[in-house]
Amino acid sequence: MTIRGSVLIGAADVTTAALFRAVDPATGAPLEPAFSAAGPREVEAACALAEAAFPHFAETTPETRARCLEAVADGIADLGAPLVERAMAETGLPRARLEGERARTVGQLRLFADLVRSGAWIRATIDPAQHKRQPLPRPDLRRRHVAIGPVAVFGASNFPLAFSVAGGDTAAALAAGCPVVVKGHPAHPGTGELVARAVRAAVATGGLPEGTFSYLPGPSTDLGSALVADPRIKGVGFTGSRAGGLALMRVAAGRPEPIPVYAEMSAVNPVVLLPGALRARSASLAAGFVQSLTLGAGQFCTNPGLLIGIAGSDLDAFAEAAAAAIRESVPHTMLTPDIRDRFAHAVAALAARPGVTVAARGAAAGPGGSPACLLRTEARHVLADPALADEMFGPAALLVAAADMAEVTRLLESLGGQLTATLHLDRADEHLAAGLVPLLARKAGRILANGWPTGVEVAPAMVHGGPFPATSDGRSSSVGTLAIERFLRPVCYQDLPDALLPPPLRPDNPWHLARRIDGVLDPQPGR
Amino acid sequence: MTIRGSVLIGAADVTTAALFRAVDPATGAPLEPAFSAAGPREVEAACALAEAAFPHFAETTPETRARCLEAVADGIADLGAPLVERAMAETGLPRARLEGERARTVGQLRLFADLVRSGAWIRATIDPAQHKRQPLPRPDLRRRHVAIGPVAVFGASNFPLAFSVAGGDTAAALAAGCPVVVKGHPAHPGTGELVARAVRAAVATGGLPEGTFSYLPGPSTDLGSALVADPRIKGVGFTGSRAGGLALMRVAAGRPEPIPVYAEMSAVNPVVLLPGALRARSASLAAGFVQSLTLGAGQFCTNPGLLIGIAGSDLDAFAEAAAAAIRESVPHTMLTPDIRDRFAHAVAALAARPGVTVAARGAAAGPGGSPACLLRTEARHVLADPALADEMFGPAALLVAAADMAEVTRLLESLGGQLTATLHLDRADEHLAAGLVPLLARKAGRILANGWPTGVEVAPAMVHGGPFPATSDGRSSSVGTLAIERFLRPVCYQDLPDALLPPPLRPDNPWHLARRIDGVLDPQPGR
Repeated sequence: MTIRGSVLIGAADVTTAALFRAVDPATGAPLEPAFSAAGPREVEAACALAEAAFPHFAETTPETRARCLEAVADGIADLGAPLVERAMAETGLPRARLEGERARTVGQLRLFADLVRSGAWIRATIDPAQHKRQPLPRPDLRRRHVAIGPVAVFGASNFPLAFSVAGGDTAAALAAGCPVVVKGHPAHPGTGELVARAVRAAVATGGLPEGTFSYLPGPSTDLGSALVADPRIKGVGFTGSRAGGLALMRVAAGRPEPIPVYAEMSAVNPVVLLPGALRARSASLAAGFVQSLTLGAGQFCTNPGLLIGIAGSDLDAFAEAAAAAIRESVPHTMLTPDIRDRFAHAVAALAARPGVTVAARGAAAGPGGSPACLLRTEARHVLADPALADEMFGPAALLVAAADMAEVTRLLESLGGQLTATLHLDRADEHLAAGLVPLLARKAGRILANGWPTGVEVAPAMVHGGPFPATSDGRSSSVGTLAIERFLRPVCYQDLPDALLPPPLRPDNPWHLARRIDGVLDPQPGR
Repeated sequence: MTIRGSVLIGAADVTTAALFRAVDPATGAPLEPAFSAAGPREVEAACALAEAAFPHFAETTPETRARCLEAVADGIADLGAPLVERAMAETGLPRARLEGERARTVGQLRLFADLVRSGAWIRATIDPAQHKRQPLPRPDLRRRHVAIGPVAVFGASNFPLAFSVAGGDTAAALAAGCPVVVKGHPAHPGTGELVARAVRAAVATGGLPEGTFSYLPGPSTDLGSALVADPRIKGVGFTGSRAGGLALMRVAAGRPEPIPVYAEMSAVNPVVLLPGALRARSASLAAGFVQSLTLGAGQFCTNPGLLIGIAGSDLDAFAEAAAAAIRESVPHTMLTPDIRDRFAHAVAALAARPGVTVAARGAAAGPGGSPACLLRTEARHVLADPALADEMFGPAALLVAAADMAEVTRLLESLGGQLTATLHLDRADEHLAAGLVPLLARKAGRILANGWPTGVEVAPAMVHGGPFPATSDGRSSSVGTLAIERFLRPVCYQDLPDALLPPPLRPDNPWHLARRIDGVLDPQPGR
């Protein structure tokens, strides 16, 4: 596969007159080649093909879709070192991280292939007729879940593979039977195109309609708005900034037909250091914290950006150890010059607030990098000005000293929705933790104990989501098998002749699904 | 229980200076007593109590919530004939219909009690730790679904019991663990207050916090908007007009924290009469159709308002038989003078459109009633002006003659989202029907064969919902056990000590739930 700088509309490579280039974030130098930016014409063409593909693609068998997902996984793996090297050049992320992310992306596609095959997502439910029921007979009712329609997916800057062209949203949407139109992130267009070509090849090999997948790269926010506004798009997956997510939510809500937007936007992922844990292991907590904070230059939505402890010598010891580790930390190149500049601005603005001090800064960085930073304040300042707890996307955190547990609780209550919330505790802290867990469960999608929130396992029990403004829709997860439900809706069939029922609901159960019959799950359908 | 005309804020009866009265729709005469209309102060008080109740109510055991729902059911049944008679006076609906609706409402509450006890809605999912996994260990991950927060429920005019104060949305929200603030429909305030008192008594008997339930009657749309705008409300259930639903969607989307709105709004519920069925049984089809159309004066969201067949003598025979039945039909009192007037206006407007003729009208009605009406046109007119297929809320339908099956398909494709879509077919029609079922599944939440869409079974497989504009959110159902998912969100617990886990996720499984462990359902946990 070579990078040709094209827009991919179904099976066609399209070029446009509007060109843009990726930039090496370490040097600011533009990278070859130039890429065609998609515009309204390409949105129109991709959406028309997606709509045309939908009726067929939505009704393909689980096996057909599972094989397609596996072919995408194989195709990405087969891209080999050139994919990783292009991603390194475009994002400044190191090789090992990108190799790990590639493994995660491929594994995620295979997980969704297994999920599609299981048929669990169909949720086949049958309430057989009761012809003799009084006062009225009960009809035969059969429910399944089906694809919602073509889906727009927005790639994220910080995961050029796992949350981008063939990331979690694309895998979940394809698994559900939804054609996907990807709005490619302009910071990694070469990486995006390589992956998009792998998806397209899998669509072709599987004999699927070309409109099953299209790829629209481009730097303009108008492109994304036009895609979300297109009447043929029925759902949106987005990972990015709060401003970007809110803008797409407004577009979606303002359409003649509003559609769901699953936007994962921002979080500071509060971490509470309980007294016993601080007393027992402030040094190892500080080491773990700084490692999590600076991982990937802090450019994770689960970055631990807000630490909370009760003021005292144990918290001071933690702060000193963390400050020492921050000063030792090696600056990494950030994803884009724009992200680097916004991060520097956010840190400077926070440092200038009354009551906030800079506890430590990392070594000065090269032109593309940013030093890590630990800031410190007291809880009363955050309670007075909640903006102190806003996300700074990068390797910076605010350490907050509270007067007592009551103030810790008030501080947590004052926060908006979060992706994660973490408690560090010793056995002696359990009674304190027990009072906080229910509160944290109202604030976040994932609660951790004695760990760090970076690192999101791709698994059935994972929830990567949370109440607004962490996401646009806290009823959902963007990681793990639960994500398929974003792109499904229920349909009930009443008294249909057997020959007209879709396979999952037929009496002979040709797909051998576990089905819920009269409210009871039949988990072992005969094969 | 007596009707006192109060607003019910938790345990308190509140009166206000703004009074309104119900009206006997048969005569237009006001009914005693006067009712206090809730305003901003009552919204504030009810939402404050609901928020205060939420942490406790959300974590009550399944048994506690199931008993509360059963106590509500018992309380409604115990209201006896006075409830039915008040509802008759306020809605003009006949006794048998209201007794049936009461049975449905009580049964629905008991169904949700059973559902809560089953714990299936918790969806307990456990991925145990893999400490030795390479390259990184897997943490222990445990997911459950929890209540989203206080919910606002809007009662509907046409089901004063089953879709009102203690209707499906209230039952589902209470089952999920969400406190409920009901905005009572102003057309049946006495009925609403009686039921609200039964809910409040059940809350008190169950030892639940008073803010678990409040009841805000009032005629003003500002009241509903204020309730949806309140930051403590986290979700909305609504059944009513498209204009009303769209207005609430706008309020919810415009909040600093947008929230989900489940609005069930409008549908014409297309019915396709396939050629073989028309040839074999046009007379019985006509009888069944007119019975469904005129049931409850046509005031059902599933009313069959659009019939489609291929032009010819069989369709003419159907039309003649239907027209005869329409002319024989007895007019019923409509729910409110306003609904009657809007219905008359909608029928007159449709009859005045080019290409539309009135095939038959029922006998003239008394002051509160409206004659049924069958209108007729050709498919090309509907294709040219989609507004011909807009809902007329009442006993009127448009019969559309299509030139051929291709035109039937085009007509169906042109329709917006629907609650239901129906096919009448003979065995010889199955090949035609097979081509339509997938299209109908994209348009509607429920597909019927050889039946009529009025009559919505309360069952696990039911879907009462559908793509916009039938509802605001086609991923959901307002009837049946699926409705509980409207009011739930997932939370993941990572590496929590056993003592800090909520009961559904503890290793000892104290609630004896069927849990999915490492992707496999363990359906028979030891008791």
